[in-house]
Amino acid sequence: MKKVVVRDAARFASDRYQKVDLFGSLHMFFDLYCLEPGQEQQGHAHAGSDKIYFVLEGVGQVEIDGESAAIQAGAAVIAPAGSQHGLKNASTDRLVVLVAMAPRPSGTK
Amino acid sequence: MKKVVVRDAARFASDRYQKVDLFGSLHMFFDLYCLEPGQEQQGHAHAGSDKIYFVLEGVGQVEIDGESAAIQAGAAVIAPAGSQHGLKNASTDRLVVLVAMAPRPSGTK
Repeated sequence: MKKVVVRDAARFASDRYQKVDLFGSLHMFFDLYCLEPGQEQQGHAHAGSDKIYFVLEGVGQVEIDGESAAIQAGAAVIAPAGSQHGLKNASTDRLVVLVAMAPRPSGTK
Repeated sequence: MKKVVVRDAARFASDRYQKVDLFGSLHMFFDLYCLEPGQEQQGHAHAGSDKIYFVLEGVGQVEIDGESAAIQAGAAVIAPAGSQHGLKNASTDRLVVLVAMAPRPSGTK
């Protein structure tokens, strides 16, 4: 059985935010996004996949279809299929977010 | 934007464990399983869907294809598509587990 201590899987880099695929599922992403202060994933959309952000540590600034909100550790939001969505660490602390997305878009990693 | 404070969504019942669907996604389950001491989800399998358990509070006893393990808060395991899997709260404290499963089997809730 593959067991992952989620927080221990986090890794950061100074040049860009990091995505850590925790299980390599073919059916969904179940990733950690690790953002240093100021880093971001710019707005984009997935035609057929829902994405859920669940903040584990820090405060994330999420924008979904033009609506912006701060999400604290312990809170989650969904970017429904087709929505334009982005995530930024506008704080001065590190940000760790669990990201589940399904179905996994083909050709992505 | 629908924001959920995940821990606040937990609910318990004395007669059986509770499943809370956090977002109602058509593409995946993103649920809280809330188990009082002694409660369990008995072993079962999903032919085409991966299920990930991420323990938020307490200690869960997971069995996947005959292998049993205790998973603590902060740890996650995957039950790959087709595997026989079950979850039990064998502790004396409440257990809260985030469960992501994709694709969402048709006809299920």
